Amino acid sequence: MKPLQNDSLIPLYHQLKERLKTSIDDGQWKPGDKIPSENQLMKEYSVSRNTAKKAIEELVQDGLLYRLQGKGTFVAKPKLQQSLMGLYSFSKVFKEKGLVPKDIVIEIKEVKPSYEIITELQLAEEENVIEMKRLRCVDDEPYVLESSFFPKRVVPDISLLKRVGEISLYDLLEEGLNVVVTRAKEAFEPVLIRSEESEYLQTKEGNPALLLERIAYGSDGVPVEFCRSIVRGDRCRFYTELT
Amino acid sequence: MKPLQNDSLIPLYHQLKERLKTSIDDGQWKPGDKIPSENQLMKEYSVSRNTAKKAIEELVQDGLLYRLQGKGTFVAKPKLQQSLMGLYSFSKVFKEKGLVPKDIVIEIKEVKPSYEIITELQLAEEENVIEMKRLRCVDDEPYVLESSFFPKRVVPDISLLKRVGEISLYDLLEEGLNVVVTRAKEAFEPVLIRSEESEYLQTKEGNPALLLERIAYGSDGVPVEFCRSIVRGDRCRFYTELT
Repeated sequence: MKPLQNDSLIPLYHQLKERLKTSIDDGQWKPGDKIPSENQLMKEYSVSRNTAKKAIEELVQDGLLYRLQGKGTFVAKPKLQQSLMGLYSFSKVFKEKGLVPKDIVIEIKEVKPSYEIITELQLAEEENVIEMKRLRCVDDEPYVLESSFFPKRVVPDISLLKRVGEISLYDLLEEGLNVVVTRAKEAFEPVLIRSEESEYLQTKEGNPALLLERIAYGSDGVPVEFCRSIVRGDRCRFYTELT
Repeated sequence: MKPLQNDSLIPLYHQLKERLKTSIDDGQWKPGDKIPSENQLMKEYSVSRNTAKKAIEELVQDGLLYRLQGKGTFVAKPKLQQSLMGLYSFSKVFKEKGLVPKDIVIEIKEVKPSYEIITELQLAEEENVIEMKRLRCVDDEPYVLESSFFPKRVVPDISLLKRVGEISLYDLLEEGLNVVVTRAKEAFEPVLIRSEESEYLQTKEGNPALLLERIAYGSDGVPVEFCRSIVRGDRCRFYTELT
Protein backbone atom coordinates (compact mmCIF):
# COMPACT_ATOMS: atom_id res chain seq x y z
CA MET A 1 0.00 0.00 0.00
CA LYS A 2 1.29 3.43 -0.96
CA PRO A 3 1.92 5.73 2.02
CA LEU A 4 0.11 9.07 2.27
CA GLN A 5 2.07 12.06 1.00
CA ASN A 6 3.30 14.28 3.82
CA ASP A 7 4.57 16.90 1.37
CA SER A 8 1.30 17.18 -0.56
CA LEU A 9 -0.87 20.31 -0.62
CA ILE A 10 -3.80 17.99 0.07
CA PRO A 11 -4.26 17.65 3.85
CA LEU A 12 -3.45 14.21 5.25
CA TYR A 13 -6.96 13.67 6.65
CA HIS A 14 -8.32 14.31 3.16
CA GLN A 15 -5.91 11.82 1.59
CA LEU A 16 -6.87 9.25 4.21
CA LYS A 17 -10.55 9.96 3.62
CA GLU A 18 -10.11 9.33 -0.12
CA ARG A 19 -8.34 6.03 0.62
CA LEU A 20 -11.12 4.85 2.92
CA LYS A 21 -13.76 6.04 0.46
CA THR A 22 -12.08 4.02 -2.29
CA SER A 23 -12.25 0.89 -0.12
CA ILE A 24 -16.02 1.43 0.03
CA ASP A 25 -16.51 2.52 -3.60
CA ASP A 26 -14.60 -0.40 -5.08
CA GLY A 27 -16.51 -2.90 -2.98
CA GLN A 28 -13.58 -4.06 -0.84
CA TRP A 29 -15.56 -2.97 2.23
CA LYS A 30 -19.24 -3.89 2.15
CA PRO A 31 -22.29 -2.41 3.95
CA GLY A 32 -22.25 -3.57 7.57
CA ASP A 33 -18.47 -4.25 7.58
CA LYS A 34 -16.58 -2.90 10.57
CA ILE A 35 -13.75 -0.62 9.52
CA PRO A 36 -10.33 -0.51 11.25
CA SER A 37 -10.22 1.42 14.54
CA GLU A 38 -8.57 4.82 14.92
CA ASN A 39 -5.54 3.12 16.46
CA GLN A 40 -5.25 0.73 13.53
CA LEU A 41 -5.55 3.55 10.99
CA MET A 42 -2.93 5.62 12.86
CA LYS A 43 -0.49 2.71 12.65
CA GLU A 44 -1.34 1.61 9.12
CA TYR A 45 -1.13 5.11 7.56
CA SER A 46 1.37 6.69 10.01
CA VAL A 47 -1.00 9.52 10.92
CA SER A 48 -1.97 11.26 14.14
CA ARG A 49 -5.14 10.47 16.05
CA ASN A 50 -6.61 13.81 14.94
CA THR A 51 -6.07 12.94 11.29
CA ALA A 52 -7.69 9.52 11.65
CA LYS A 53 -10.54 11.03 13.68
CA LYS A 54 -11.24 13.79 11.14
CA ALA A 55 -11.23 11.40 8.15
CA ILE A 56 -13.72 9.10 9.87
CA GLU A 57 -15.82 12.01 11.13
CA GLU A 58 -16.28 13.40 7.62
CA LEU A 59 -17.18 9.99 6.19
CA VAL A 60 -19.79 9.64 8.95
CA GLN A 61 -21.11 13.10 8.06
CA ASP A 62 -21.21 12.11 4.38
CA GLY A 63 -23.33 9.10 5.31
CA LEU A 64 -20.77 6.54 4.11
CA LEU A 65 -19.96 5.28 7.61
CA TYR A 66 -21.95 5.09 10.84
CA ARG A 67 -20.96 4.60 14.46
CA LEU A 68 -22.37 2.21 17.01
CA GLN A 69 -21.64 3.26 20.57
CA GLY A 70 -19.04 0.95 22.10
CA LYS A 71 -18.94 -1.27 19.02
CA GLY A 72 -17.02 0.64 16.36
CA THR A 73 -17.53 2.25 12.97
CA PHE A 74 -19.27 0.47 10.12
CA VAL A 75 -19.90 0.87 6.40
CA ALA A 76 -23.38 2.32 5.76
CA LYS A 77 -25.88 1.06 3.23
CA PRO A 78 -25.58 2.91 -0.08
CA LYS A 79 -28.00 5.83 -0.35
CA LEU A 80 -31.27 5.33 -2.12
CA GLN A 81 -30.94 6.91 -5.56
CA GLN A 82 -34.13 8.67 -6.60
CA SER A 83 -34.60 9.89 -10.16
CA LEU A 84 -36.31 13.21 -10.81
CA MET A 85 -37.08 12.33 -14.39
CA GLY A 86 -40.73 11.55 -13.82
CA LEU A 87 -43.55 11.80 -11.30
CA TYR A 88 -42.58 9.37 -8.55
CA SER A 89 -44.19 7.99 -5.44
CA PHE A 90 -41.87 6.95 -2.61
CA SER A 91 -43.91 3.85 -1.82
CA LYS A 92 -43.72 2.62 -5.43
CA VAL A 93 -40.04 3.51 -5.77
CA PHE A 94 -39.17 1.61 -2.60
CA LYS A 95 -41.09 -1.44 -3.73
CA GLU A 96 -39.49 -1.40 -7.17
CA LYS A 97 -36.09 -1.51 -5.50
CA GLY A 98 -37.10 -4.61 -3.55
CA LEU A 99 -37.36 -2.70 -0.26
CA VAL A 100 -40.24 -2.98 2.17
CA PRO A 101 -41.88 0.43 2.62
CA LYS A 102 -44.07 1.16 5.60
CA ASP A 103 -45.99 4.35 6.29
CA ILE A 104 -46.81 5.31 9.84
CA VAL A 105 -49.62 7.87 9.91
CA ILE A 106 -48.82 10.25 12.78
CA GLU A 107 -51.91 12.41 12.52
CA ILE A 108 -54.71 13.50 10.22
CA LYS A 109 -56.54 16.70 11.08
CA GLU A 110 -58.27 19.77 9.72
CA VAL A 111 -56.19 22.95 10.06
CA LYS A 112 -56.16 26.57 9.04
CA PRO A 113 -53.69 26.95 6.17
CA SER A 114 -50.59 29.16 6.36
CA TYR A 115 -50.13 31.97 3.87
CA GLU A 116 -47.77 29.79 1.84
CA ILE A 117 -50.27 26.93 1.60
CA ILE A 118 -53.13 29.28 0.67
CA THR A 119 -51.00 30.55 -2.20
CA GLU A 120 -49.68 27.19 -3.39
CA LEU A 121 -53.04 25.42 -3.21
CA GLN A 122 -54.89 28.45 -4.61
CA LEU A 123 -57.37 28.24 -1.73
CA ALA A 124 -60.53 30.28 -1.43
CA GLU A 125 -60.90 32.59 1.55
CA GLU A 126 -61.66 30.75 4.81
CA GLU A 127 -61.05 27.39 3.11
CA ASN A 128 -59.46 24.91 5.48
CA VAL A 129 -57.04 22.12 4.64
CA ILE A 130 -56.62 18.54 5.77
CA GLU A 131 -53.13 17.81 7.03
CA MET A 132 -51.79 14.28 7.03
CA LYS A 133 -48.44 13.73 8.72
CA ARG A 134 -46.62 10.50 7.93
CA LEU A 135 -43.35 8.84 8.79
CA ARG A 136 -42.16 6.86 5.81
CA CYS A 137 -39.97 3.91 6.64
CA VAL A 138 -37.93 1.52 4.55
CA ASP A 139 -37.08 -1.88 6.01
CA ASP A 140 -38.28 -0.50 9.37
CA GLU A 141 -35.93 2.49 9.28
CA PRO A 142 -37.42 6.00 8.99
CA TYR A 143 -36.31 7.81 5.81
CA VAL A 144 -38.83 10.62 5.29
CA LEU A 145 -41.06 12.74 7.54
CA GLU A 146 -43.86 14.14 5.45
CA SER A 147 -46.83 16.47 5.81
CA SER A 148 -49.41 16.53 3.03
CA PHE A 149 -52.04 19.27 2.87
CA PHE A 150 -55.23 18.86 0.82
CA PRO A 151 -57.97 21.43 0.23
CA LYS A 152 -60.90 20.23 2.29
CA ARG A 153 -63.12 20.08 -0.79
CA VAL A 154 -60.72 17.49 -2.30
CA VAL A 155 -60.90 15.17 0.72
CA PRO A 156 -64.36 15.75 2.22
CA ASP A 157 -64.20 12.40 4.02
CA ILE A 158 -61.09 12.51 6.15
CA SER A 159 -61.41 8.88 7.27
CA LEU A 160 -60.54 7.72 3.76
CA LEU A 161 -56.94 8.82 4.33
CA LYS A 162 -56.53 6.22 7.05
CA ARG A 163 -56.12 3.63 4.31
CA VAL A 164 -52.79 5.20 3.34
CA GLY A 165 -50.21 2.60 4.24
CA GLU A 166 -52.25 -0.16 2.64
CA ILE A 167 -52.13 1.55 -0.75
CA SER A 168 -50.21 4.54 -2.07
CA LEU A 169 -51.70 8.00 -1.51
CA TYR A 170 -52.11 8.69 -5.22
CA ASP A 171 -53.81 5.33 -5.82
CA LEU A 172 -56.09 6.12 -2.90
CA LEU A 173 -56.96 9.58 -4.28
CA GLU A 174 -57.68 7.99 -7.65
CA GLU A 175 -59.74 5.05 -6.43
CA GLY A 176 -61.52 6.72 -3.55
CA LEU A 177 -61.98 10.28 -4.81
CA ASN A 178 -61.48 10.11 -8.55
CA VAL A 179 -58.61 12.59 -8.28
CA VAL A 180 -55.83 11.70 -10.69
CA VAL A 181 -52.48 13.35 -10.04
CA THR A 182 -50.83 13.86 -13.40
CA ARG A 183 -48.19 16.48 -12.74
CA ALA A 184 -46.24 18.03 -9.88
CA LYS A 185 -43.81 20.83 -9.18
CA GLU A 186 -41.05 19.97 -6.76
CA ALA A 187 -38.49 22.20 -5.06
CA PHE A 188 -35.35 21.19 -3.11
CA GLU A 189 -33.53 22.94 -0.33
CA PRO A 190 -30.95 21.65 2.11
CA VAL A 191 -31.92 22.00 5.78
CA LEU A 192 -30.78 20.81 9.20
CA ILE A 193 -32.82 18.22 11.02
CA ARG A 194 -34.63 19.83 13.94
CA SER A 195 -35.03 18.43 17.40
CA GLU A 196 -38.64 17.25 17.01
CA GLU A 197 -37.91 15.82 13.55
CA SER A 198 -34.85 13.96 14.82
CA GLU A 199 -37.02 11.97 17.21
CA TYR A 200 -39.26 10.73 14.41
CA LEU A 201 -36.39 10.18 11.99
CA GLN A 202 -34.17 8.49 14.61
CA THR A 203 -31.21 10.59 13.64
CA LYS A 204 -29.32 13.48 15.17
CA GLU A 205 -30.52 17.08 15.37
CA GLY A 206 -28.40 19.22 13.04
CA ASN A 207 -27.79 16.41 10.54
CA PRO A 208 -28.24 17.37 6.88
CA ALA A 209 -31.59 16.71 5.22
CA LEU A 210 -33.38 17.68 2.06
CA LEU A 211 -36.59 19.67 2.30
CA LEU A 212 -38.80 18.74 -0.66
CA GLU A 213 -41.87 20.83 -1.36
CA ARG A 214 -44.26 19.39 -3.87
CA ILE A 215 -47.44 20.78 -5.37
CA ALA A 216 -49.41 18.04 -7.10
CA TYR A 217 -52.05 18.86 -9.71
CA GLY A 218 -55.14 16.93 -10.73
CA SER A 219 -55.97 16.24 -14.36
CA ASP A 220 -57.95 19.52 -14.53
CA GLY A 221 -54.80 21.45 -13.56
CA VAL A 222 -56.09 22.35 -10.09
CA PRO A 223 -53.62 21.85 -7.20
CA VAL A 224 -54.78 19.00 -4.97
CA GLU A 225 -51.84 18.50 -2.59
CA PHE A 226 -49.08 20.55 -1.05
CA CYS A 227 -46.50 18.24 0.48
CA ARG A 228 -43.49 19.06 2.61
CA SER A 229 -40.99 16.23 3.14
CA ILE A 230 -37.87 16.08 5.28
CA VAL A 231 -35.67 13.46 3.66
CA ARG A 232 -32.68 12.06 5.56
CA GLY A 233 -29.52 13.10 3.75
CA ASP A 234 -27.64 10.01 4.89
CA ARG A 235 -30.22 7.77 3.25
CA CYS A 236 -31.29 9.39 -0.02
CA ARG A 237 -29.77 11.11 -3.01
CA PHE A 238 -31.62 12.60 -5.99
CA TYR A 239 -30.45 12.76 -9.58
CA THR A 240 -31.62 13.95 -12.95
CA GLU A 241 -30.51 14.28 -16.54
CA LEU A 242 -30.11 17.73 -18.03
CA THR A 243 -30.33 18.14 -21.79
CA MET B 1 -53.91 41.50 14.96
CA LYS B 2 -55.10 38.12 16.17
CA PRO B 3 -53.26 36.82 19.26
CA LEU B 4 -51.42 33.50 19.13
CA GLN B 5 -53.36 30.51 20.47
CA ASN B 6 -52.07 29.33 23.82
CA ASP B 7 -54.35 26.29 23.78
CA SER B 8 -53.28 25.07 20.34
CA LEU B 9 -51.38 21.85 19.71
CA ILE B 10 -49.06 23.91 17.51
CA PRO B 11 -46.21 25.25 19.67
CA LEU B 12 -46.23 29.02 20.18
CA TYR B 13 -42.80 29.52 18.56
CA HIS B 14 -44.14 27.77 15.48
CA GLN B 15 -47.24 29.97 15.35
CA LEU B 16 -45.03 33.05 15.73
CA LYS B 17 -42.71 31.76 13.02
CA GLU B 18 -45.66 31.36 10.64
CA ARG B 19 -46.80 34.93 11.41
CA LEU B 20 -43.37 36.38 10.73
CA LYS B 21 -43.01 34.25 7.61
CA THR B 22 -46.33 35.58 6.34
CA SER B 23 -45.07 39.15 6.78
CA ILE B 24 -42.20 38.24 4.47
CA ASP B 25 -44.20 36.12 2.01
CA ASP B 26 -46.93 38.71 1.49
CA GLY B 27 -44.39 41.48 0.89
CA GLN B 28 -45.18 43.52 4.02
CA TRP B 29 -41.53 43.13 5.03
CA LYS B 30 -39.05 43.56 2.19
CA PRO B 31 -35.45 42.29 1.75
CA GLY B 32 -33.12 44.44 3.87
CA ASP B 33 -35.91 45.53 6.27
CA LYS B 34 -35.09 45.30 9.95
CA ILE B 35 -37.59 43.15 11.82
CA PRO B 36 -38.85 43.92 15.36
CA SER B 37 -36.46 43.06 18.20
CA GLU B 38 -36.98 40.11 20.56
CA ASN B 39 -38.33 42.53 23.16
CA GLN B 40 -40.82 44.01 20.71
CA LEU B 41 -42.00 40.55 19.59
CA MET B 42 -42.38 39.44 23.24
CA LYS B 43 -44.62 42.41 23.92
CA GLU B 44 -46.54 42.36 20.66
CA TYR B 45 -47.36 38.63 20.74
CA SER B 46 -47.31 38.09 24.55
CA VAL B 47 -44.66 35.38 24.31
CA SER B 48 -41.56 34.52 26.33
CA ARG B 49 -38.06 35.44 25.23
CA ASN B 50 -37.37 31.78 24.43
CA THR B 51 -40.36 31.64 22.11
CA ALA B 52 -39.33 34.82 20.27
CA LYS B 53 -35.72 33.61 20.11
CA LYS B 54 -36.64 30.19 18.71
CA ALA B 55 -38.96 31.60 16.02
CA ILE B 56 -36.25 34.00 14.83
CA GLU B 57 -33.54 31.35 15.09
CA GLU B 58 -35.45 28.98 12.80
CA LEU B 59 -36.17 31.70 10.25
CA VAL B 60 -32.44 32.52 10.23
CA GLN B 61 -31.68 28.83 9.70
CA ASP B 62 -34.25 28.72 6.89
CA GLY B 63 -32.42 31.60 5.22
CA LEU B 64 -35.40 33.98 5.43
CA LEU B 65 -33.72 36.27 7.99
CA TYR B 66 -30.12 37.15 8.74
CA ARG B 67 -28.41 38.76 11.71
CA LEU B 68 -25.91 41.61 11.77
CA GLN B 69 -23.87 41.68 14.96
CA GLY B 70 -24.99 44.60 17.12
CA LYS B 71 -27.41 45.86 14.49
CA GLY B 72 -30.39 43.52 14.56
CA THR B 73 -32.17 40.96 12.40
CA PHE B 74 -33.07 41.64 8.77
CA VAL B 75 -35.11 40.13 5.96
CA ALA B 76 -32.88 38.16 3.56
CA LYS B 77 -32.95 38.37 -0.20
CA PRO B 78 -35.20 35.70 -1.70
CA LYS B 79 -33.32 32.56 -2.71
CA LEU B 80 -32.21 32.16 -6.26
CA GLN B 81 -34.63 29.74 -7.91
CA GLN B 82 -32.83 27.41 -10.28
CA SER B 83 -34.78 25.19 -12.67
CA LEU B 84 -33.58 21.64 -13.33
CA MET B 85 -35.58 21.40 -16.53
CA GLY B 86 -32.63 21.89 -18.84
CA LEU B 87 -28.85 22.03 -18.99
CA TYR B 88 -27.96 25.22 -17.14
CA SER B 89 -24.84 27.24 -16.53
CA PHE B 90 -24.70 29.29 -13.34
CA SER B 91 -23.05 32.24 -15.07
CA LYS B 92 -25.78 32.40 -17.72
CA VAL B 93 -28.56 31.90 -15.20
CA PHE B 94 -27.26 34.69 -12.99
CA LYS B 95 -26.98 37.07 -15.93
CA GLU B 96 -30.48 36.24 -17.16
CA LYS B 97 -31.81 37.22 -13.74
CA GLY B 98 -30.11 40.59 -13.97
CA LEU B 99 -27.47 39.68 -11.39
CA VAL B 100 -23.76 40.30 -11.79
CA PRO B 101 -21.89 36.99 -11.63
CA LYS B 102 -18.19 36.86 -10.91
CA ASP B 103 -15.97 33.80 -10.84
CA ILE B 104 -12.85 33.81 -8.73
CA VAL B 105 -10.48 31.06 -9.88
CA ILE B 106 -8.83 29.69 -6.72
CA GLU B 107 -6.53 27.20 -8.40
CA ILE B 108 -5.93 25.22 -11.56
CA LYS B 109 -3.65 22.19 -11.31
CA GLU B 110 -2.98 18.69 -12.55
CA VAL B 111 -3.90 16.00 -10.01
CA LYS B 112 -4.19 12.25 -9.69
CA PRO B 113 -7.89 11.37 -9.80
CA SER B 114 -9.73 9.67 -6.95
CA TYR B 115 -11.43 6.34 -7.54
CA GLU B 116 -14.79 8.11 -7.90
CA ILE B 117 -13.47 10.48 -10.58
CA ILE B 118 -11.76 7.66 -12.51
CA THR B 119 -15.12 5.87 -12.63
CA GLU B 120 -17.26 8.90 -13.47
CA LEU B 121 -14.92 10.26 -16.15
CA GLN B 122 -14.18 6.77 -17.51
CA LEU B 123 -10.45 7.50 -17.30
CA ALA B 124 -7.72 5.28 -18.69
CA GLU B 125 -5.16 3.90 -16.27
CA GLU B 126 -2.62 6.46 -15.10
CA GLU B 127 -4.58 9.26 -16.77
CA ASN B 128 -4.41 12.47 -14.78
CA VAL B 129 -7.05 15.16 -14.49
CA ILE B 130 -6.99 18.94 -14.44
CA GLU B 131 -8.75 20.38 -11.42
CA MET B 132 -10.13 23.90 -11.51
CA LYS B 133 -11.46 25.27 -8.23
CA ARG B 134 -13.70 28.34 -8.43
CA LEU B 135 -15.66 30.54 -6.10
CA ARG B 136 -18.78 31.72 -7.87
CA CYS B 137 -20.14 35.02 -6.63
CA VAL B 138 -23.31 36.95 -7.34
CA ASP B 139 -23.31 40.70 -6.73
CA ASP B 140 -19.99 40.19 -4.89
CA GLU B 141 -21.41 37.59 -2.51
CA PRO B 142 -20.15 33.97 -2.72
CA TYR B 143 -22.90 31.48 -3.62
CA VAL B 144 -21.11 28.36 -4.89
CA LEU B 145 -17.73 26.73 -4.28
CA GLU B 146 -16.98 24.49 -7.20
CA SER B 147 -14.30 22.03 -8.34
CA SER B 148 -14.32 20.90 -11.96
CA PHE B 149 -12.21 17.94 -13.08
CA PHE B 150 -11.35 17.41 -16.75
CA PRO B 151 -9.46 14.46 -18.30
CA LYS B 152 -6.07 15.87 -19.22
CA ARG B 153 -6.60 14.91 -22.86
CA VAL B 154 -9.66 17.21 -22.99
CA VAL B 155 -7.74 20.24 -21.71
CA PRO B 156 -4.15 19.72 -22.87
CA ASP B 157 -3.40 23.44 -22.49
CA ILE B 158 -4.20 24.28 -18.90
CA SER B 159 -3.63 28.02 -19.39
CA LEU B 160 -6.78 28.23 -21.52
CA LEU B 161 -8.87 27.75 -18.35
CA LYS B 162 -7.61 31.04 -16.97
CA ARG B 163 -10.08 32.79 -19.28
CA VAL B 164 -12.96 31.39 -17.22
CA GLY B 165 -14.51 34.42 -15.59
CA GLU B 166 -14.44 36.37 -18.83
CA ILE B 167 -16.63 33.79 -20.57
CA SER B 168 -18.59 30.78 -19.29
CA LEU B 169 -16.73 27.47 -18.97
CA TYR B 170 -18.88 25.74 -21.56
CA ASP B 171 -18.45 28.57 -24.07
CA LEU B 172 -14.71 28.37 -23.42
CA LEU B 173 -14.63 24.60 -23.97
CA GLU B 174 -16.57 25.07 -27.21
CA GLU B 175 -14.60 28.00 -28.61
CA GLY B 176 -11.15 27.00 -27.39
CA LEU B 177 -11.27 23.21 -27.53
CA ASN B 178 -14.18 22.37 -29.80
CA VAL B 179 -15.80 20.41 -26.96
CA VAL B 180 -19.56 20.90 -26.96
CA VAL B 181 -21.36 19.89 -23.78
CA THR B 182 -24.79 18.64 -24.78
CA ARG B 183 -25.94 16.64 -21.80
CA ALA B 184 -25.22 16.19 -18.09
CA LYS B 185 -26.18 13.99 -15.18
CA GLU B 186 -26.62 15.82 -11.92
CA ALA B 187 -27.07 14.47 -8.38
CA PHE B 188 -28.14 16.32 -5.22
CA GLU B 189 -27.35 15.66 -1.60
CA PRO B 190 -27.72 17.88 1.45
CA VAL B 191 -24.47 18.45 3.36
CA LEU B 192 -23.11 20.68 6.11
CA ILE B 193 -20.68 23.44 5.21
CA ARG B 194 -17.20 22.51 6.41
CA SER B 195 -14.72 24.79 8.09
CA GLU B 196 -12.52 25.39 5.03
CA GLU B 197 -15.56 25.85 2.78
CA SER B 198 -17.12 28.33 5.21
CA GLU B 199 -14.15 30.66 4.79
CA TYR B 200 -14.58 30.79 1.02
CA LEU B 201 -18.37 30.97 1.18
CA GLN B 202 -18.39 33.57 3.96
CA THR B 203 -20.94 31.64 5.92
CA LYS B 204 -20.95 29.51 9.05
CA GLU B 205 -19.51 26.02 9.40
CA GLY B 206 -22.39 23.56 9.88
CA ASN B 207 -24.86 25.59 7.80
CA PRO B 208 -26.91 23.59 5.30
CA ALA B 209 -25.70 23.37 1.71
CA LEU B 210 -26.45 21.36 -1.37
CA LEU B 211 -23.74 19.16 -2.84
CA LEU B 212 -24.26 18.96 -6.60
CA GLU B 213 -22.27 16.42 -8.57
CA ARG B 214 -22.40 16.82 -12.31
CA ILE B 215 -20.98 14.71 -15.09
CA ALA B 216 -21.04 16.60 -18.38
CA TYR B 217 -20.82 14.78 -21.70
CA GLY B 218 -19.48 15.97 -25.05
CA SER B 219 -21.44 15.51 -28.26
CA ASP B 220 -19.74 12.13 -28.79
CA GLY B 221 -21.14 10.92 -25.45
CA VAL B 222 -17.73 10.89 -23.73
CA PRO B 223 -17.61 12.46 -20.23
CA VAL B 224 -15.59 15.68 -20.32
CA GLU B 225 -16.16 17.16 -16.86
CA PHE B 226 -16.87 15.95 -13.35
CA CYS B 227 -17.95 18.87 -11.23
CA ARG B 228 -18.61 19.04 -7.49
CA SER B 229 -20.37 22.16 -6.24
CA ILE B 230 -21.17 23.26 -2.71
CA VAL B 231 -24.19 25.56 -3.04
CA ARG B 232 -25.21 27.78 -0.12
CA GLY B 233 -28.61 26.63 1.10
CA ASP B 234 -29.54 30.12 2.28
CA ARG B 235 -29.06 31.49 -1.23
CA CYS B 236 -30.33 28.88 -3.70
CA ARG B 237 -33.27 26.58 -4.22
CA PHE B 238 -33.79 24.12 -7.07
CA TYR B 239 -37.05 23.08 -8.66
CA THR B 240 -38.35 20.87 -11.39
CA GLU B 241 -41.58 19.67 -12.95
CA LEU B 242 -42.49 16.02 -12.73
CA THR B 243 -44.85 14.53 -15.30
